[in-house]
Amino acid sequence: MALIVQKYGGTSVGSAERIKNVARRVADWKSRGHQLVVVVSAMAGETNRLIALAKEVQAHPDPRELDVMVSTGEQVTIALLSMALVELGLKARSYTGAQVKILTDSAHTKARIVSIDETRIRADLDEGCVVVIAGFQGVDARGNITTLGRGGSDTTGVALAAALKAEECQIYTDVDGVYTADPRIVPEARRLKTVTFEEMLELASLGSKVLQIRSVEFAGRYRVRMRVLSSFEEESEGTLITFEEDEDMEQATISGIAFNRDEAKITILGVPDRPGIAYQILGPIGDANIDVDMIVQNVSHDGMTDFSFTVHRNDFKKTLKILEPVVKHIKARGVESGDKIAKVSVVGVGMRSHAGIASAMFRTLAEEGINIEMISTSEIKISVVIDEKYLELAVRVLHKSFGLEQPG
Amino acid sequence: MALIVQKYGGTSVGSAERIKNVARRVADWKSRGHQLVVVVSAMAGETNRLIALAKEVQAHPDPRELDVMVSTGEQVTIALLSMALVELGLKARSYTGAQVKILTDSAHTKARIVSIDETRIRADLDEGCVVVIAGFQGVDARGNITTLGRGGSDTTGVALAAALKAEECQIYTDVDGVYTADPRIVPEARRLKTVTFEEMLELASLGSKVLQIRSVEFAGRYRVRMRVLSSFEEESEGTLITFEEDEDMEQATISGIAFNRDEAKITILGVPDRPGIAYQILGPIGDANIDVDMIVQNVSHDGMTDFSFTVHRNDFKKTLKILEPVVKHIKARGVESGDKIAKVSVVGVGMRSHAGIASAMFRTLAEEGINIEMISTSEIKISVVIDEKYLELAVRVLHKSFGLEQPG
Repeated sequence: MALIVQKYGGTSVGSAERIKNVARRVADWKSRGHQLVVVVSAMAGETNRLIALAKEVQAHPDPRELDVMVSTGEQVTIALLSMALVELGLKARSYTGAQVKILTDSAHTKARIVSIDETRIRADLDEGCVVVIAGFQGVDARGNITTLGRGGSDTTGVALAAALKAEECQIYTDVDGVYTADPRIVPEARRLKTVTFEEMLELASLGSKVLQIRSVEFAGRYRVRMRVLSSFEEESEGTLITFEEDEDMEQATISGIAFNRDEAKITILGVPDRPGIAYQILGPIGDANIDVDMIVQNVSHDGMTDFSFTVHRNDFKKTLKILEPVVKHIKARGVESGDKIAKVSVVGVGMRSHAGIASAMFRTLAEEGINIEMISTSEIKISVVIDEKYLELAVRVLHKSFGLEQPG
Repeated sequence: MALIVQKYGGTSVGSAERIKNVARRVADWKSRGHQLVVVVSAMAGETNRLIALAKEVQAHPDPRELDVMVSTGEQVTIALLSMALVELGLKARSYTGAQVKILTDSAHTKARIVSIDETRIRADLDEGCVVVIAGFQGVDARGNITTLGRGGSDTTGVALAAALKAEECQIYTDVDGVYTADPRIVPEARRLKTVTFEEMLELASLGSKVLQIRSVEFAGRYRVRMRVLSSFEEESEGTLITFEEDEDMEQATISGIAFNRDEAKITILGVPDRPGIAYQILGPIGDANIDVDMIVQNVSHDGMTDFSFTVHRNDFKKTLKILEPVVKHIKARGVESGDKIAKVSVVGVGMRSHAGIASAMFRTLAEEGINIEMISTSEIKISVVIDEKYLELAVRVLHKSFGLEQPG
């Protein structure tokens, strides 16, 4: 008998029928003798409906009140799932974030979890109850309702698993795991049985939508075993996210190919190469709350260098505007920019111990005539920026050249 | 400067536009220097939508979970109204029933208020905030969400007014007060400036839908001044519900004509007139949770009498079924029944000190050829049961014969 936390996303609970399906799956786990804590999101579309209604009343809704409103989405789902479980003859009880005291800070619409009071949940579990908890929401020290921001239900699941020292935190979604590449682009892409936390962090940060990056960080910090599963396919075991040291080290060199086409690149040409110059460029951008992703600066010639970085496309124009006075001030030669780019990354903990991954990647792209505009590397990832039109081709040829269609 | 509690019903907050209208009205009261606590219902149609969704999952929804679900209706409205108030430049803060600790018993879907913790509300009012509170809901001693049952938002308003010792509890609805009769039947019907609590109780129990009877009882017990107002007409002062002793006793004899066509009548013929017989008849009906309204028994002849009473039409068939063995057992002669009846009542505290109201009522009906099937009286009310087809005629001629179209 184990204590398992399960989290079902908005699509999995998108209708009365689907909620009944989730209840049957929970009942199945329960019948195998496990203790179950189930975290649910709002029904698909509900959060957007509520936000749209709020905006009819106030163009920029008051954050405290928006949280009061949006948190009703999950509250409806916990009640419905509990009803469905009771209908199947199980004991079930629902709780909002406030009721089980998922204590957060007071940053409305993007709060962070501080602690969870698990006494009530434990008491219910000991009574044989399935405990159903609203994801995505909490309560601050003054009793105000807060939300964790979009996708925060994953984080609720992981935080509960940590607080309850659960065996596993199962994230049910509309895909049945983490793949070696997006199957819509690479039909041969293969589901990974395991992936390490570090790889998952890189994949999430690269735009792979399977898990919210904050929930993965949280799981890493509290050493929660997470598993990604499909709520529609019963058979698959999904992908287990492992701690490297737990596993036999027969890791594949490369776990997957990720990509991101939400970015734009900016290069400042002819920057005088002196200390403090990077801060002079990026400081004002950070002050405007714009996140910078890749940053590349090569060695300088004659005291001059080129300084490149990428930002989200939504921030592209704003960033260019901010840079205008900066470029003048630092006496740079000019600015080059473009938003028709894509970032393609090869990720794998195995590359630490294998030389030659980078050169293999660059050769593969060169053979297809794909020009590399920027390169950046981390211990377990190599990312390149290329012309957006080559994105699908690049992902496919890399997937093939690293032999990812073969079980590792 | 006074502290005023206002309650807006579902129609008044039925859309973003209407919520903005409510906000403007609240802002107007605030600008006159008053402190405002505003109670709101769910947007019109929302509670029914939620109940229908629950029934898709569970035919008879678990009461605890139904409360978790249905309470989201008001939670959405409090957030929207607070946003609308903030948009107008006011300080506003919303609270669910649980957040301001509207403590109730644990009778899910029909809970009763035990107490209200007003500290947080007072602190907000002292800061100049408009406090917006979800009607119809509370929390039990274990932290479970409860609801007060349909129409319970009026009761929330009155309970808050009592706890805060408010100057007045204003109930905004889609009519602008209490009328001498239903204006759809009697076009000359006149809005009453005041009506006593006792009269209001009789009117509510007779099916006049202006206020929930529980809220009126509550107001009577805690001596809360209630006023019924229209949320759509700005000019009208509505109807103030007064405590008799507060007012100059120049009361009109009759306040209004009420009616109810939801009842059915049952007569048991030839009942042996001996002690305990009424209990033998009504006991099994009460045991089946069927409410009996009028009960009439006349003097007996030769040790036999006829025993009549009315029940809600929904309970008519069930009641006849329950009576079958009873009639045999007590050896009554038979049963007569009918559901094509209506009850018409004349209500007014003034009738206590005026003889002849009953005879005037009976004469008026006789002049129109309307037969009276049953009569029952209280201190401030005379009710008759007549054939349903004469209902509108009876209400109109009584309204005219008591001169109700003239200001009292």
